[in-house]
Amino acid sequence: MTDSWATFGADLHVELRGPGLRSGLMDALREAVRTGRLAPGTRLPSSRSLAADLGIARNTVADAYAELVAEGWLTARQGSGTRVARRAAPRPGPGTGVRGGSRGASRGGAQAGPVPVRRPPVRRPAAHTLHPGTPDLGSFPRGEWLKAARRALTSAPHEALGYGEPHGRIELRTVLADYLARARGVYAHPDRIVVCSGFVHGLRLMAQVLRGRQVRDVAVESYGLDIHWNLLTEAGLRTPALPFDEHGTRVGALGRQGAVLMTPAHQFPLGGALPPDRRAEVVDWARRTGALILEDDYDGEFRYDRQPVGALQGLDPERVVYLGTASKSLTPGLRLGWMVLPEALVGDVLAAKGHSEWVSSALDQLTLAEFIRSGAYDRHVRGMRLRYRRRRDQLVAALAERAPDIRVTGIAAGLHAVLELPPGMERSVVQSAAWQGLAVQGLDRFRHPDVPPGRDALVVGYATPTDSAWAGALDALCRALP
Amino acid sequence: MTDSWATFGADLHVELRGPGLRSGLMDALREAVRTGRLAPGTRLPSSRSLAADLGIARNTVADAYAELVAEGWLTARQGSGTRVARRAAPRPGPGTGVRGGSRGASRGGAQAGPVPVRRPPVRRPAAHTLHPGTPDLGSFPRGEWLKAARRALTSAPHEALGYGEPHGRIELRTVLADYLARARGVYAHPDRIVVCSGFVHGLRLMAQVLRGRQVRDVAVESYGLDIHWNLLTEAGLRTPALPFDEHGTRVGALGRQGAVLMTPAHQFPLGGALPPDRRAEVVDWARRTGALILEDDYDGEFRYDRQPVGALQGLDPERVVYLGTASKSLTPGLRLGWMVLPEALVGDVLAAKGHSEWVSSALDQLTLAEFIRSGAYDRHVRGMRLRYRRRRDQLVAALAERAPDIRVTGIAAGLHAVLELPPGMERSVVQSAAWQGLAVQGLDRFRHPDVPPGRDALVVGYATPTDSAWAGALDALCRALP
Repeated sequence: MTDSWATFGADLHVELRGPGLRSGLMDALREAVRTGRLAPGTRLPSSRSLAADLGIARNTVADAYAELVAEGWLTARQGSGTRVARRAAPRPGPGTGVRGGSRGASRGGAQAGPVPVRRPPVRRPAAHTLHPGTPDLGSFPRGEWLKAARRALTSAPHEALGYGEPHGRIELRTVLADYLARARGVYAHPDRIVVCSGFVHGLRLMAQVLRGRQVRDVAVESYGLDIHWNLLTEAGLRTPALPFDEHGTRVGALGRQGAVLMTPAHQFPLGGALPPDRRAEVVDWARRTGALILEDDYDGEFRYDRQPVGALQGLDPERVVYLGTASKSLTPGLRLGWMVLPEALVGDVLAAKGHSEWVSSALDQLTLAEFIRSGAYDRHVRGMRLRYRRRRDQLVAALAERAPDIRVTGIAAGLHAVLELPPGMERSVVQSAAWQGLAVQGLDRFRHPDVPPGRDALVVGYATPTDSAWAGALDALCRALP
Repeated sequence: MTDSWATFGADLHVELRGPGLRSGLMDALREAVRTGRLAPGTRLPSSRSLAADLGIARNTVADAYAELVAEGWLTARQGSGTRVARRAAPRPGPGTGVRGGSRGASRGGAQAGPVPVRRPPVRRPAAHTLHPGTPDLGSFPRGEWLKAARRALTSAPHEALGYGEPHGRIELRTVLADYLARARGVYAHPDRIVVCSGFVHGLRLMAQVLRGRQVRDVAVESYGLDIHWNLLTEAGLRTPALPFDEHGTRVGALGRQGAVLMTPAHQFPLGGALPPDRRAEVVDWARRTGALILEDDYDGEFRYDRQPVGALQGLDPERVVYLGTASKSLTPGLRLGWMVLPEALVGDVLAAKGHSEWVSSALDQLTLAEFIRSGAYDRHVRGMRLRYRRRRDQLVAALAERAPDIRVTGIAAGLHAVLELPPGMERSVVQSAAWQGLAVQGLDRFRHPDVPPGRDALVVGYATPTDSAWAGALDALCRALP
């Protein structure tokens, strides 16, 4: 421990009182780095010993450290513990080509006190978040992934590292075709798969293709994500909302729209599966009118209480554009998704993708191909299904005990649940959660602007916390409920 | 060796005669797989033994195998050699959700003869290519990269695997700021760096920003890449060409354009550096008119005969948008590039990048950050500089000996050279090269449509072949020259 910690650590106890321990600790550390009170390179005590020292939970310290590492204030390296980041030397002046001082400094022991860089203010994250849409990042199988990367990169031909082709790597498309047929009932073939950097990229490409085909309206569901609606709007498409009843989206209301964007296997965020008669009905509509169905299969792998609902795409591969992603099943950081396209659309989508430099990392594509091929993907999905199911059961049990009036729906599948609230309570519950340091979203957040306000509810992403943060998040949720 | 190879191999000698051995071998193997003559899973002889068997160079066989692996006809796995790919079972019928047979088959020994999938015809690549724009893919430091990936992924906080932020990972921006200041004289700071998926992505973002600011014209150089001009045109921008003389682009001709796209450190493809007075002149123009300079620093690291030319951006970081990439220094397959922006543009570029899902793989960003931080990037660039310089010297020596009338220019830097041809010869030399199995491009290919035809020349990308293919490519080039 260097001297700069010794003097700072002595004061630290005083500054940490009351609620918001973790964010308080983060603020104190940030300020100390910013002002130079903690010198660059200073080694921090282990999370265990600082936690004991401060009389707080070790996870609180570990989480604060991790977040500060992520923000660039601290660095963590195996074997050398957590340290204050050695930030860049004073900015090089224009035209001088001055060497930044950090390389030299990062080797030496003593520092000449490089000027800490003032970063723009960071929005302080809540202590816990139950926002839907992110898997448990702590469960990303780093070791297995690295093994697959080694195998993939060792055996890849040199050519695989080049600019590649707009479809994406053939290795990945080949294993995806097999996997999607097997796991999701998708009629897939490598030639009609186009790799993209996630659902949003795929939707952007489709928006471009639809506009090019003079489509004006893409129907959407009553509840969904504003980023998807906005993307379509920015591409010049209108997004009329379809009505919704207790069985799900009323596809019978579809008319002259050129396409519909749907989550048939697991409505986001309400959680139901589109019933079989409506599946048939929407496909009939598309056939009759020549329209397209954009199927957002964002979490199709995660089903708990019943047989998986296969992809709608299997019903008519020439009318359904299937969009899948590794963002929920593995991690959003991969930025890999896939489209399975009607044969007639492949050319248009490739043209929309552009004439060169096709976005997705070849190394990651090769690694994911090997990860799927070797069976590691199936094992990971199976393991996560059990873990998420356990969390869901813990959520249901905790609510039954501590908030027995709250009905939980949409829990047969996926990574989130809907907690029905008494009328008029949604906003106050979200606020009360914020006071508990819990970020959680109300259903209103997901309501299409055309749809009148209806039920009050929370959309709880129970997959989002890491294992160590889950119990605290669940507790904060229960405390926030009426 | 299975029986299906034994019968096929016996015929193979007969089919391979004359020139184009490699593509002949590839055709024969493709056809045998397509027709089922070589059964899925069949193990092929090693490249060494097949080469000896056929009396041809081992590299010819190895290259043919590698290309067929890349195309998906064969698979190569360490320890189990090269095999005929086990292609998917017959396509699943619509709505059946049939399990594809390939997973089962890929474990069993005997095959029930899955129907080979007919792929669309593949354009047969030339035996050699000297197209500029691609580094030697065989030199990608796979082992060092995997080590960096392991270190990066082991120490990354969980949060680093999430959706991230639109700037790109702070770890990468921090090391880039240091590296670019040190190696390229760029006035860089993590807050003004935005990670993108390569130059084209960065240019697309800038085109959007410029259009949003009511810019109509982006001046370009007389010679460059049509994909860049087309991208700007598709974004609604005109691309008037600046005149060019023996000192380079005549920036004095700049007028009311809102921006100029340039390669000041190493003109692409002609190869000169913009002289100091013109560097000052273009910056003065930008200051005077409020215009922006888009600096394409595609291969700034590779200089041979003189001091590196620093980035123009250092002269005025508020008027120059610096665009760099790992595509030439490491590999295009990474799909990673970076923009260093005037402070006033950061918000606009982030908005153009979109509201979510920011394209670049977090895993690769973390790995590249660690690769740079550990010094491996500097070592790799130094090593490649020596190798490319050696190739350039070999090119110059071979031409001096075998085509002494050809003048070589643009060779002080970069990964390509310009071979000046006698007037009127360009097209016939390109064609004669094609007959030799060599893909090479004439200067005309890089001429802006506004610029009248001028010099006849070849643009030779001497970095493009792998080490094993280099001698053959050079020989084919010399044979094609007048």
